[in-house]
Amino acid sequence: MEIMSHIDWHPALADPSKQRQVKPRTTGKTMVIDKGLGLRAFEDLLQASANHIDIIKIGFGTSVLYPKHILQEKIKLAKKANVQIMPGGTFLEAAVLQHKQDHFFEMVHQLGFTSIEVSDGTIELSPQLRKDLILKGMEYQLQVFTEYGKKCWGSSIEIEACVQTIQQDIEHGAEMVTIEGRESGVGVGIYDENGDCKQSELQELLNQVPSTDLIMWETPLKSQQVQLIKQIGADINLGNIAPTDILSLEALRRGLRSDTLQMFE
Amino acid sequence: MEIMSHIDWHPALADPSKQRQVKPRTTGKTMVIDKGLGLRAFEDLLQASANHIDIIKIGFGTSVLYPKHILQEKIKLAKKANVQIMPGGTFLEAAVLQHKQDHFFEMVHQLGFTSIEVSDGTIELSPQLRKDLILKGMEYQLQVFTEYGKKCWGSSIEIEACVQTIQQDIEHGAEMVTIEGRESGVGVGIYDENGDCKQSELQELLNQVPSTDLIMWETPLKSQQVQLIKQIGADINLGNIAPTDILSLEALRRGLRSDTLQMFE
Amino acid sequence: MEIMSHIDWHPALADPSKQRQVKPRTTGKTMVIDKGLGLRAFEDLLQASANHIDIIKIGFGTSVLYPKHILQEKIKLAKKANVQIMPGGTFLEAAVLQHKQDHFFEMVHQLGFTSIEVSDGTIELSPQLRKDLILKGMEYQLQVFTEYGKKCWGSSIEIEACVQTIQQDIEHGAEMVTIEGRESGVGVGIYDENGDCKQSELQELLNQVPSTDLIMWETPLKSQQVQLIKQIGADINLGNIAPTDILSLEALRRGLRSDTLQMFE
Repeated sequence: MEIMSHIDWHPALADPSKQRQVKPRTTGKTMVIDKGLGLRAFEDLLQASANHIDIIKIGFGTSVLYPKHILQEKIKLAKKANVQIMPGGTFLEAAVLQHKQDHFFEMVHQLGFTSIEVSDGTIELSPQLRKDLILKGMEYQLQVFTEYGKKCWGSSIEIEACVQTIQQDIEHGAEMVTIEGRESGVGVGIYDENGDCKQSELQELLNQVPSTDLIMWETPLKSQQVQLIKQIGADINLGNIAPTDILSLEALRRGLRSDTLQMFE
Repeated sequence: MEIMSHIDWHPALADPSKQRQVKPRTTGKTMVIDKGLGLRAFEDLLQASANHIDIIKIGFGTSVLYPKHILQEKIKLAKKANVQIMPGGTFLEAAVLQHKQDHFFEMVHQLGFTSIEVSDGTIELSPQLRKDLILKGMEYQLQVFTEYGKKCWGSSIEIEACVQTIQQDIEHGAEMVTIEGRESGVGVGIYDENGDCKQSELQELLNQVPSTDLIMWETPLKSQQVQLIKQIGADINLGNIAPTDILSLEALRRGLRSDTLQMFE
Repeated sequence: MEIMSHIDWHPALADPSKQRQVKPRTTGKTMVIDKGLGLRAFEDLLQASANHIDIIKIGFGTSVLYPKHILQEKIKLAKKANVQIMPGGTFLEAAVLQHKQDHFFEMVHQLGFTSIEVSDGTIELSPQLRKDLILKGMEYQLQVFTEYGKKCWGSSIEIEACVQTIQQDIEHGAEMVTIEGRESGVGVGIYDENGDCKQSELQELLNQVPSTDLIMWETPLKSQQVQLIKQIGADINLGNIAPTDILSLEALRRGLRSDTLQMFE
């Protein structure tokens, strides 16, 4: 761990039980949402912080908006840095809407993506089709992340359905299930119209889910990252993190920022 | 259209009437506001998304704050990528305030800018001087964008004066007229103090203006982009877009993001 | 001043008394907060705007999260561009919390940082320890910035204690004292829960402090930059500025943006 060589004195590292896992991690993963980084910015991101990034999501359907060779280069760079990379769930939803999922899988495979997101944030997806998409992804040797929750304003999560979905998706082969938080983090899923966690929903979900390792929390806002880290722990899986926030988030996880400094006292 | 080669299956492209024009577009233009990108970030922006950018505005009076050779290089790169480039309107306003507009045009010409913005967001501009500035720009072979609206908090637009200004500016040679939205998008022009569109003003403007192709809507906030795209159409001209939002906006225009996915069903 | 060669006509420069000092400035300094820029973005920042940056702060405890050679390269680049560079105050607080301040100074020295920030935003610091840390920094030939104010939500500043702290810290050798504004600028220090300046606190502070040159105001929000520039002057010291806002802020200082254009009329 050359990266740590100059910080062996740090509190969060002094107690081995508080150390963060190194990659490939089984939990405490961080997923970045990339809304259009160019090649140099992408190289910057990986060079400065690949150790703290597990997955990069090429947001929404933006994959098709890059010149093809730029997207291919980004995918290559991510893989070289041991970072998983996938297109956004809306991209697959658009394909499903047009009954073009075969084209989708073929394209994802050809481009070299390592993972996909199966979601029904905007469209309806029958349990059977959801299962088929997961299995199809695995057939192509892709890591499958699924998502629970609708993207529309004011939508919340139904705990029972959510827990059931998590169990089924995992059973069918999914890595973990993302809880919808959008890119804004406001008025959707477990967040109220101010972006604060709805405590009763969250508590009930935590009570019923077999393991929080199965969940990736979309936490675009810093306040949400702080709240969930304090409430559940530093090693939860967090998604939809802005590229500019990667080191700040890792600092939060390690008690290297005011909000969580006292956690490691 | 090499860039599209891997997305021939997409719904928004299946129906030719829904395809986006390629550059040089007559409508559906996107104008980026650049508040200080360095050379590598600027190259990134053009390399990854020049196909989706029509104009870059070097925001406010920041043009004079760069080392000269850096600004010149940016202008050169933009032109090479077939992107128009202009200084912000406040820059010309500062010059007018000091009766130095001749120096302004000389400098803009020497630096190689392709376009200018003629505005009176902060200063007062007589109709005669406004016309003179447009004509002077055209004399220098510059594309002229004009702007309607004051930048001060709580200012709104007067529909009749706005429509009349649009007609006159176009008659004098302007490309199109920008509706002030500032860089914040809040409490100015057609936006209320929450950044929402004031529907009555907007509707009246839409009723009276000869063609929305003549208007560029400053929509710095995503919610504003979504609202106007849904209400007027995917091919409206949108300005003051942050460089980080270019691909997200293009995804919105093409139904590749949740908010507009159903538009193309 | 090659950088100014093409703007000799500008109002803010016509009157020498209104010109901004060039580096090394005695006042009107700008401090950037860097939350994780990669090497290319860092080079961009310096190349495009080093003339307008006096200090770069590697935010919070993120210093330890970079691969060591990347951090060393950033420090080298900053120094070459005549920009001071320091780790965030929370980093030293974490060390103090573990009684590892000696390791901290050794590490800061070895890495080549030019400056440090001594703060007690999260932990408690006795006046004696505060003094010792300042003196220790100076022993290592480091510029010492101190900070006044707690980071917790709703905390405000006590004027008398603040003025006394400023006087003592300066007496002990500190360069200047930062007034806490966090990275958010909301609900802390002189800012209320909307990020607006609390006028009575601000006025009292201005009345009692010997010179505003001794203060660095953390103003992450544009509204705060505008308000303090209008109220105190263009040449105040401003901190926690986002890298993307450097040229915008400099434009504000020089009357090259709508909000302050009329200041220089």
